Amino acid sequence: MQPIGAVGLDEVSGLTTPIARFLDGNTDMPTPFLVFDLDVVALRYRQLREALPAAKVFYAVKANPAEEVLTALEQLGSSFDVASRGEIERCLRIGIEPERLAYGNTIKKERDVAFAYEVGVRTFTVDAEAELEKVVRQAPGSTVYVRIATDGTGADWPLSRKFGCDMAEAAALIRRAAWAGLEFGASFHVGSQQRDVRAWDRPLADVGALLDQLRSEGLEAAGINLGGGFPSHYVDPVPELGAYGTAIRAALAANLGGFAGEVLVEPGRYLVGDAGVIETEVVLISRRPDNDEARWVYLDIGMFNGLTETLDESIRYRVGTPGDRANQGPVVLAGPSCDSADVLYEKAGYQLPLDLRIGDRVRLLSTGAYTSSYSSVWFNGFEPLRCFFVSSHDQRVVAA
Amino acid sequence: MQPIGAVGLDEVSGLTTPIARFLDGNTDMPTPFLVFDLDVVALRYRQLREALPAAKVFYAVKANPAEEVLTALEQLGSSFDVASRGEIERCLRIGIEPERLAYGNTIKKERDVAFAYEVGVRTFTVDAEAELEKVVRQAPGSTVYVRIATDGTGADWPLSRKFGCDMAEAAALIRRAAWAGLEFGASFHVGSQQRDVRAWDRPLADVGALLDQLRSEGLEAAGINLGGGFPSHYVDPVPELGAYGTAIRAALAANLGGFAGEVLVEPGRYLVGDAGVIETEVVLISRRPDNDEARWVYLDIGMFNGLTETLDESIRYRVGTPGDRANQGPVVLAGPSCDSADVLYEKAGYQLPLDLRIGDRVRLLSTGAYTSSYSSVWFNGFEPLRCFFVSSHDQRVVAA
Repeated sequence: MQPIGAVGLDEVSGLTTPIARFLDGNTDMPTPFLVFDLDVVALRYRQLREALPAAKVFYAVKANPAEEVLTALEQLGSSFDVASRGEIERCLRIGIEPERLAYGNTIKKERDVAFAYEVGVRTFTVDAEAELEKVVRQAPGSTVYVRIATDGTGADWPLSRKFGCDMAEAAALIRRAAWAGLEFGASFHVGSQQRDVRAWDRPLADVGALLDQLRSEGLEAAGINLGGGFPSHYVDPVPELGAYGTAIRAALAANLGGFAGEVLVEPGRYLVGDAGVIETEVVLISRRPDNDEARWVYLDIGMFNGLTETLDESIRYRVGTPGDRANQGPVVLAGPSCDSADVLYEKAGYQLPLDLRIGDRVRLLSTGAYTSSYSSVWFNGFEPLRCFFVSSHDQRVVAA
Repeated sequence: MQPIGAVGLDEVSGLTTPIARFLDGNTDMPTPFLVFDLDVVALRYRQLREALPAAKVFYAVKANPAEEVLTALEQLGSSFDVASRGEIERCLRIGIEPERLAYGNTIKKERDVAFAYEVGVRTFTVDAEAELEKVVRQAPGSTVYVRIATDGTGADWPLSRKFGCDMAEAAALIRRAAWAGLEFGASFHVGSQQRDVRAWDRPLADVGALLDQLRSEGLEAAGINLGGGFPSHYVDPVPELGAYGTAIRAALAANLGGFAGEVLVEPGRYLVGDAGVIETEVVLISRRPDNDEARWVYLDIGMFNGLTETLDESIRYRVGTPGDRANQGPVVLAGPSCDSADVLYEKAGYQLPLDLRIGDRVRLLSTGAYTSSYSSVWFNGFEPLRCFFVSSHDQRVVAA
């Protein structure tokens, strides 16, 4: 295993100029907190539009539901994938038109479907008969996307069997939807932080075959939803976004060449992950029994106040530290709570400078996605992660 | 594997009269929510005092930090184990005297030690040299408990290597503490939801040997902290609390017969777990590809809005449902979010009535501990778990 060394704070990797300026100006601010550069969201949005010009972007609000983020994306022209009534209400409150919302969660209470329809939402996703019937009853004339199961190979955040139906059921659900007067489409998700640009190939072949079959029955799909999966920059290298665009465009041409409907993508992590940096502090460094080699480094942020995605060490953030990076040694990274499960990285192979000290500031890079909204309300008496939003029209360095 | 069947709602198991009355009177209240019976806390407190009359009770605030719970325990005469500055401030705000607080987290910022000392806290726990030095510098004359590592065998919630030092280091830390003018004690934790009443035997033998050694050097301990670990009533049966009392008293007599200092216990789960019931609703029932047998039952509560302890299916709650319990079939239980990791029980072997329907109310019993304060602030746009507190001076049935 390749050891994961600290990233130098003088190497600007992951630190944009507005973030660096904020951190430099707030060295006494109590930690932990997240600084988020809204310009990175704009950059990522443009990159995605360039890579997949035919696709309409539906930002997955759950990745970072801050109003600042939603407003920035609304101004860029994005649409929004929402997971709940709460997310719908927040989007409407800041002025996003309901036609720009897609209710993408396949698990919805019927009264929430009714609410969504009443406020103007017309796009829903389902993967089961009972869920489709809720849409039939409560959202006449809407477009329903039927989600097809994929195996998630190549993705860092696990994709369980929780979502998606097989091809035969998808066809049956679509026939039922069409019969009930709904528009329909097909959707799938290749798994979050997908590092294989070819992961879209097989589901697109399946979708192509499915839509051909339906077309032969006189049923024409209104759209295809390619899901998310586009990566942020963590420890393990990822392909350039352009490579995803090339691969997906090729798979679309090969399998759905004549498709005239809408093509949707649902990026979450990709648009906001690299935009955030968490500033944290070393609370304690100690050695534990039975482990002579690795120091235990306890930070003031952990699994329960923002770093949920370190679960099973799935998402491995880059760590920036002060100190002598020519002399590093193995560490276990843990959170500040009394909970034994609050250990971030024990097996991943992190190394940090041997001269790291208690009280040092440590930065976790590319932490703009799935951090702040996952924070516990008051676990162990720790406050939820505070967030600050910055931006600038200056030239500045952006990670990767 | 024994299948885990549904508990009948007519069997009153886990439902006290005040909780049942609240639920009966609020059948239209939007779910999910937690109903918590404060009388159960009082009952459990008395049971623990009876089982271990010599021990002073320090309630582990993190288990349920609601002010209602803290106030009830304050009136019963409890002291409090706190994990953070936030928990200290909350306890003081509701009028708990600082002498009744022990700062038991072994991972503390030095300025938080200073804060605690300044407001009157005089009891701290450490397990590392650097942590002890913070207490030496900031909390002169206090009592410091040195936490010894245990292996956690027999506990349902995993105990990692995150906490505790070995015996040699404990002795060294205590000598240093005494030399610096601090009082000292020894502490350990056998792991949460500990189902083996003999789990205290070995750490108490170790502590007895340690204190004998220190006594021979002229150092006398001020106290022993037995930690927590006393169980709530989940699916797997647990011994009666009396059996824990008998075993622990025997281990104390055998290893620390002449000990004249204080004995502390830190129950969290035991005092509050059985006091709570979560009311939830079935949002969707479906069958997934590749699994013909088990239905997937999606509830409106999941891993990220209250049921964190289902992580790795560690804590298995009893589930109460309506329907025909003579005809049950296997289910996978999952939460309502778009996150693939939000699956509660897939391997544990739960069975629920075959006639369970979407919209049915389902009750999760003994969910008063480690639920509400673990909820995410706004994950997937879901609100944190709402809580209602009830009590009564009437006679009523209490679980187990």
